[in-house]
Amino acid sequence: MDTLHNWLAIASVGLGGQRYLQLSEHMSLAELVALPASTLQQIGFTQRQAQLLCYEASSWVDQALQWQAEAPDHHIIPFDHQLYPPLLKETRQPPLVLFVKGAAELLCQPQMAMVGSRSPSPTGRKVARQLAAELTQTGILVTSGMARGIDSECHQGALQAGGKTLAVLGHGLRQVYPSSNKRLAADIVQAGALVSEYFPNIRARAEFFPQRNRIVVGLSIGTVVVEAALKSGSLISAQLAVDYNREVFAVAGAFYNPQAAGCHYLIQQGAKLVTSVADILEERALFVDNGLLNQSEKNITLDLCSKQLLDNLDEQPIPADLLAERVGITVTDVSIALLELELAGKVAAVPGGYIIVRST
Amino acid sequence: MDTLHNWLAIASVGLGGQRYLQLSEHMSLAELVALPASTLQQIGFTQRQAQLLCYEASSWVDQALQWQAEAPDHHIIPFDHQLYPPLLKETRQPPLVLFVKGAAELLCQPQMAMVGSRSPSPTGRKVARQLAAELTQTGILVTSGMARGIDSECHQGALQAGGKTLAVLGHGLRQVYPSSNKRLAADIVQAGALVSEYFPNIRARAEFFPQRNRIVVGLSIGTVVVEAALKSGSLISAQLAVDYNREVFAVAGAFYNPQAAGCHYLIQQGAKLVTSVADILEERALFVDNGLLNQSEKNITLDLCSKQLLDNLDEQPIPADLLAERVGITVTDVSIALLELELAGKVAAVPGGYIIVRST
Repeated sequence: MDTLHNWLAIASVGLGGQRYLQLSEHMSLAELVALPASTLQQIGFTQRQAQLLCYEASSWVDQALQWQAEAPDHHIIPFDHQLYPPLLKETRQPPLVLFVKGAAELLCQPQMAMVGSRSPSPTGRKVARQLAAELTQTGILVTSGMARGIDSECHQGALQAGGKTLAVLGHGLRQVYPSSNKRLAADIVQAGALVSEYFPNIRARAEFFPQRNRIVVGLSIGTVVVEAALKSGSLISAQLAVDYNREVFAVAGAFYNPQAAGCHYLIQQGAKLVTSVADILEERALFVDNGLLNQSEKNITLDLCSKQLLDNLDEQPIPADLLAERVGITVTDVSIALLELELAGKVAAVPGGYIIVRST
Repeated sequence: MDTLHNWLAIASVGLGGQRYLQLSEHMSLAELVALPASTLQQIGFTQRQAQLLCYEASSWVDQALQWQAEAPDHHIIPFDHQLYPPLLKETRQPPLVLFVKGAAELLCQPQMAMVGSRSPSPTGRKVARQLAAELTQTGILVTSGMARGIDSECHQGALQAGGKTLAVLGHGLRQVYPSSNKRLAADIVQAGALVSEYFPNIRARAEFFPQRNRIVVGLSIGTVVVEAALKSGSLISAQLAVDYNREVFAVAGAFYNPQAAGCHYLIQQGAKLVTSVADILEERALFVDNGLLNQSEKNITLDLCSKQLLDNLDEQPIPADLLAERVGITVTDVSIALLELELAGKVAAVPGGYIIVRST
C-alpha cells in the first residue's frame, strides 16, 4: 500500500494525532498499518479499532480515494503532506488526514478564525460581515465553520470583499449542512475551500461540531468571537484558542443583548476587545506578514526573529509555543517567522514541532 | 479670626491643596493668613493672590458665612474637618474647603463615582439608572456631577431606589445648573447632598466642570463610565481615577454606538468591563464594607489588613496608595481599612496621608 493509503487507513479507525505521534516514535506508518490485530491491541488499540484497521479500513480508503478521483479540486492532505497546516499540527489533537474541496494551498496561509452565535442580532450579523470583509481586504484569510448566523456572515463578508475563505465542516464533504447553505458552499469551493477531517460519506452528527471547532481555531493565528451567549460553542472555541496559545478577540455589544454576554465574559477573562479591524491587525506579525510594514522594516523584524529561532532549534522537535516562550516573542510572531523559515528550507515542521534543517 | 475664617480666606485666593500642604510644614494656618502681602509674595503667592488675601478675602469669607447661616443644611467643611473625606484628601489637588448643601456626613461614606455622556443613547440612560439603583441598594453611595444625560440618570436611579446620592457641582451652591435640573437638585438636597469647592455666589464657567470631575473621582473608591465618546470629559475622569489609583469600570456598548467608543477604549486600556452590578461589587472590600460577608469573615479580613497597615504606619504621613503598594493589597481595601482604623481612633488622616495615633 502507498503512504496515502496508510494514512487513510489509520485515520479511518479514529486514531488521534497525539496517539499517532507516540506510536511514530517506535515504528513507521507502514509498519504500524501492517501489524496484526493482536499486536495492535497490545499497543493500545481497542479491539474494535484493531478489527477495523485489519479488516474494514480498505473500504474506507476506497471511499476516500474514489471521492478524490471525482474532481481535480478534491484533495486529501495527510499529516506529513507539505500542505498540512503547521499551526494545526501543533494542537493537542490534530486530525491525521484533512479532506479539502477547493484550493488546498490556502491551508497554510495566515488565517483568522471568526466564530459566533447561530442566532445573532442584526448588529452582530453586520459586524461579522464587515470585519470579515476588512480582514480579507488586508490579505488575511477568514476561517469559520459555515454554521447559520455569524459563521455564514463571515464567509459572505470575505467573498463579497473579493477574497477567499475557508469553511471547516462537521461532516464529510459529500454533504452540505445546513442545506440552506448549498449556494454558500458552492461559492466557497470556487473562492476558497471546504475542509473536513471526516471521510466524504460521513453525515453530520451533533458531537462533530465541537470537534470541528478545534480545527477552525487550530488553523488560525487568532480567533474573533463576534457575538456569543454565555455557555455557547463559541466560548468553547475561544477556550481552545487560549489553550493553543492563540490570540482571542471579542466584539463588545449592548448591555442588554444576551448575545453579547459571552463576548463580555471573554473580555473580562483577557480577550482583546475589538472595535475595528485595526484592533486585530495591531498584532504586529500580521502587519509584517501582509506587507503593511515596508520591506526593510519587515526584513529587520524577520531577521531578528529568525536568528533567535534558529539559535533555539536543533534536531529535537520543539513546538512553536515553547519556542515563543523561550525567545520571548508572541506565538503569532514565531509562527509566521517559522513559516518563512520553512519556505526558505531552513526549518521543517515535523510531528511534535519544528526542527532545524542542516544544509548538507 | 477663627479657624474656619482662615480656611475660607486662603481658599478664596485659589490656593491649591498641594501648595497649602507645603506651606503648612513651615507655619500654621493662622500664621499664614496673618502674613503681610510682601511676605506672601516672597513665599510664592502671586501679587494678585497676596492682595486678595490681605485686602479682599474678608468679603468672600462674609459671603460664605452668610450662606452657611441661611439654613441648617448649609455646611462648610474645611480641610481639617472630621467630615473632610479622607479619599479626597489623598488626591493631588484637594480643595481646601467644601461647601455642602444637605447631609454633609455622607462625604465620608464609601462612594462609587458614575460618569458619562451628556447625550447618551436610550440604552445608556437605562443602564445608568439601573446600575445606580443597584449600587444604592447594596449600600454604596452613588456620586456624580448632576450634568445632563448619564449623570442625571445616575442620581435619579439612586433616588428611585430609595437611597441617597452626592452631586458635585462646577459652580457655587446658590446656582443650579443646568436649570432643567432644579427639581433634581432639590431632591438631592433632601436625600443626599450637593457639594462644591466654589464659593456660594460663584457662577458656572466652562473650565470649572473638568475641575469638578476631579472631586467626583477623588471622593470615590472607583469610577464607573456608563457611556462616553472618545475624547470626552468622562475619559478625563477615568484617567484621573487611574492617576489616583482607583478602580475604573466601563460599560460596553454596541459596535456602532459612538457613545460606546470611549468605554471600549478604556476597557482596552485596562478598565474592568461591567456587565452587572456584581462586576463592581466583586471588589472584595466593597462586600466587606457593606456587610455582604458575614461578620466573622469581615473581622478576619479587617484584622489582617489592619495589622499590616499599622505595622507600616508611623508619625510620617503616608498616602493610602503607597500603603497599598507596601502591603500588597488594593487601594480600595486599604482605604476602607484605614477608615475603620480612623473611626477606631488608631490612625489619623492628615495632610499628606495617614499617621499612627499612639495611645498616651
